[in-house]
Amino acid sequence: MRVGVYPGSFDPTTNGHLDLIHRGMKLVDKLVVGVLNNTNKQPLFSVQERVTVLEELTKDMPNVIVDSFTGLLVDFIKRHNAHIIIRGLRAVSDFEYELQMAQTNYTLDREIETIFLVTRVENSYLSSSIVKDIAKFGGHFENMVPESIVKKIKYKYNPSAN
Amino acid sequence: MRVGVYPGSFDPTTNGHLDLIHRGMKLVDKLVVGVLNNTNKQPLFSVQERVTVLEELTKDMPNVIVDSFTGLLVDFIKRHNAHIIIRGLRAVSDFEYELQMAQTNYTLDREIETIFLVTRVENSYLSSSIVKDIAKFGGHFENMVPESIVKKIKYKYNPSAN
Amino acid sequence: MRVGVYPGSFDPTTNGHLDLIHRGMKLVDKLVVGVLNNTNKQPLFSVQERVTVLEELTKDMPNVIVDSFTGLLVDFIKRHNAHIIIRGLRAVSDFEYELQMAQTNYTLDREIETIFLVTRVENSYLSSSIVKDIAKFGGHFENMVPESIVKKIKYKYNPSAN
Amino acid sequence: MRVGVYPGSFDPTTNGHLDLIHRGMKLVDKLVVGVLNNTNKQPLFSVQERVTVLEELTKDMPNVIVDSFTGLLVDFIKRHNAHIIIRGLRAVSDFEYELQMAQTNYTLDREIETIFLVTRVENSYLSSSIVKDIAKFGGHFENMVPESIVKKIKYKYNPSAN
Amino acid sequence: MRVGVYPGSFDPTTNGHLDLIHRGMKLVDKLVVGVLNNTNKQPLFSVQERVTVLEELTKDMPNVIVDSFTGLLVDFIKRHNAHIIIRGLRAVSDFEYELQMAQTNYTLDREIETIFLVTRVENSYLSSSIVKDIAKFGGHFENMVPESIVKKIKYKYNPSAN
Amino acid sequence: MRVGVYPGSFDPTTNGHLDLIHRGMKLVDKLVVGVLNNTNKQPLFSVQERVTVLEELTKDMPNVIVDSFTGLLVDFIKRHNAHIIIRGLRAVSDFEYELQMAQTNYTLDREIETIFLVTRVENSYLSSSIVKDIAKFGGHFENMVPESIVKKIKYKYNPSAN
Repeated sequence: MRVGVYPGSFDPTTNGHLDLIHRGMKLVDKLVVGVLNNTNKQPLFSVQERVTVLEELTKDMPNVIVDSFTGLLVDFIKRHNAHIIIRGLRAVSDFEYELQMAQTNYTLDREIETIFLVTRVENSYLSSSIVKDIAKFGGHFENMVPESIVKKIKYKYNPSAN
Repeated sequence: MRVGVYPGSFDPTTNGHLDLIHRGMKLVDKLVVGVLNNTNKQPLFSVQERVTVLEELTKDMPNVIVDSFTGLLVDFIKRHNAHIIIRGLRAVSDFEYELQMAQTNYTLDREIETIFLVTRVENSYLSSSIVKDIAKFGGHFENMVPESIVKKIKYKYNPSAN
Repeated sequence: MRVGVYPGSFDPTTNGHLDLIHRGMKLVDKLVVGVLNNTNKQPLFSVQERVTVLEELTKDMPNVIVDSFTGLLVDFIKRHNAHIIIRGLRAVSDFEYELQMAQTNYTLDREIETIFLVTRVENSYLSSSIVKDIAKFGGHFENMVPESIVKKIKYKYNPSAN
Repeated sequence: MRVGVYPGSFDPTTNGHLDLIHRGMKLVDKLVVGVLNNTNKQPLFSVQERVTVLEELTKDMPNVIVDSFTGLLVDFIKRHNAHIIIRGLRAVSDFEYELQMAQTNYTLDREIETIFLVTRVENSYLSSSIVKDIAKFGGHFENMVPESIVKKIKYKYNPSAN
Repeated sequence: MRVGVYPGSFDPTTNGHLDLIHRGMKLVDKLVVGVLNNTNKQPLFSVQERVTVLEELTKDMPNVIVDSFTGLLVDFIKRHNAHIIIRGLRAVSDFEYELQMAQTNYTLDREIETIFLVTRVENSYLSSSIVKDIAKFGGHFENMVPESIVKKIKYKYNPSAN
Repeated sequence: MRVGVYPGSFDPTTNGHLDLIHRGMKLVDKLVVGVLNNTNKQPLFSVQERVTVLEELTKDMPNVIVDSFTGLLVDFIKRHNAHIIIRGLRAVSDFEYELQMAQTNYTLDREIETIFLVTRVENSYLSSSIVKDIAKFGGHFENMVPESIVKKIKYKYNPSAN
């Protein structure tokens, strides 16, 4: 059985992430969406909130599960008996960082293969940071994230609004 | 009437910024230099100081005005009835970020056009950060910024000198 | 009066080119689409055919004219009393070549300003070469070029087909 | 059944290509190595020679087959009932071209997914062109290609040598 | 006498740094390894610890000395009567930053020449940050740094372990 | 004795090349300018003409000699007992090609070190190709090449002019 891991912060999940999940789940028998608990950063959503959002978004995808992790990706991968990392590529700067990570993970575990999918052009400018920058100032981000989390994001920045 | 906005932090204004203003004001009927009030960063000069410096530097350019803004650039642009964003490009890493911003702003408002000018080679290594790194340790930055602000920068790092 | 030149080979015109013309004509009072007669390459369409296609495509744009040129772009620009070059940017490799051209043209004539527009994401993979590569082998390129030239391209590769 | 295609010129096959085949065959149930018959270029080895070399190199890999093609990759893929293209990435310039190709192929057929593997660092400088440049002048390329084709390459450049 | 400076943070020294020292010392008559005391960052090892590690590692290299500095690199260079800066290049993003630094330093002192060496492929994914990210979570970094400092790094993250 | 080789086509020598020679000769005890006889390209100047131009330009530099070569750079280097290759870097696309060449040459001979110097900003847009493109159409290239070869280039494109 081919098991793949799609790791990320998903803070919040964007349409770009969701597209990658749709495409990634066809490439493996089981896809684990891995939510990184990055203790260095103050996230918008807690790890548990992010996992819950993703579980809701993937509930009709039978071969997708969601899990969170702290620490090294290679350890998370072993825990799920996975051998494949799936990552999206948008731009050149992405590429160099991702290449460095792929080489490092390969050094840590020779059995791991990282495969890259290219972000669809309509999502190529999208990132969680941009969604947050726009939402913070009341801008229009509705077409950038799954519908179900629009309200959740607005609430984070403006709890008193309806 | 074509109204353009040239946004930035201008902390401090460099010769590269000033060159962009000179060139940008020829491309539009009115150019608004927009000083970003980035609340996440501790600036060297306050927004008001930066606006004052730029007003002094552009006082002989009849179609240039200076204004500051907080929040989304697209909102600032609407406030000035502008449709054009002017940005300088120095390097590949600039380019990818700028492309992402241009795409995002276009998504937020289809009437906005971002136009890029290439930094002159003699300014291609210049940035506000580099000026500050050099000034902080007493290095020679006099040829990197307009003459009128050399003293102001030195004073910031060493108020007791004179 | 601001006169701009949008130079290129247009062999053939793609939807990306047409989008640039639409956007460029708003930035200047008069836009000259300049069709390069590159004597080093064997084109698919003759210069005259390319000019005719562009004249047809721009016939409802009152401030756009089409002209062809051989030799240096700076000479073509002077002939049209233009001071602005408009170019599209898609990718990093584009960017470096374009930057080099912009610097060179500025060296040849200090009055010339090159402004860059970013290609819309939906056209970001498009180029005349890709259209030709696909058309050559009977692939589907209908959504990549203006409708009026689909038949002309097909005829070039297969004159006997109807 | 997941069927993947690994297309290329393989003129000649390098250690980098062979590594990609080893890794790619684990990601799919059947891997088709597709040798492009590029009619625009004068190859060192004929398509038939290149197919034969690859068949020999992959004869112990039960789920790998070798085939050649002319024309569009998407047509080749359909012929093999494949949905996955596998490509290697070495450098930034690779990346931009590959991204453009992936977007184009996706436009031509929405069912096709391109997945990228990063070249191992020890092969990151390798390409068929470099092997040919070195072999042409009698340099040492023995560690760059599979052992079985060293002699074949030498013979191409110097048929009279033993 | 040609004196060169190889500046960096060396927090910690990696195999990539050590390789650069080996190669750099052959290019000059005297090589000064300059440990930057960056007061903005909280390092893993103190400047003094880093200097000591490097002195131990270079004790058999007669033309290499180690020194630390605060402030501008150009001032450190003058102090050592050096005219050459040696830097390693791994990736495109490195390159742009390094180019900007080289241009800036040349502006500050026309007598200074920056020379770049390309990192060996086996070290091309390596950086001090990656070593720390792995060590922090108990991963395997033993093949990324000189043997003598493996224990020192482990102790920093886990003083109570043996 | 440190011997360095600065290889290139020098067809024609530009101000950028000459600057590299000036800077390179300070880094080594003897600098060999190596003029590549690329049999695949039709040059503007013959190898002998290019060597003569360079000998004239370097006649007052006591530690610089000029020589031509065919074939592999590593063989040329050995012939001159050199261990250092000097190359200029202008842009990202340069960088990737140069990195590939440096890795390849290191693979062919572990004793060879390639060092890169960054092109001065005022020469960063310059290349032999651009000079030829401009000269071919009678444009102004006088500030791009050493004065002594301006007439020689003009004569190549227009022998009948005086």
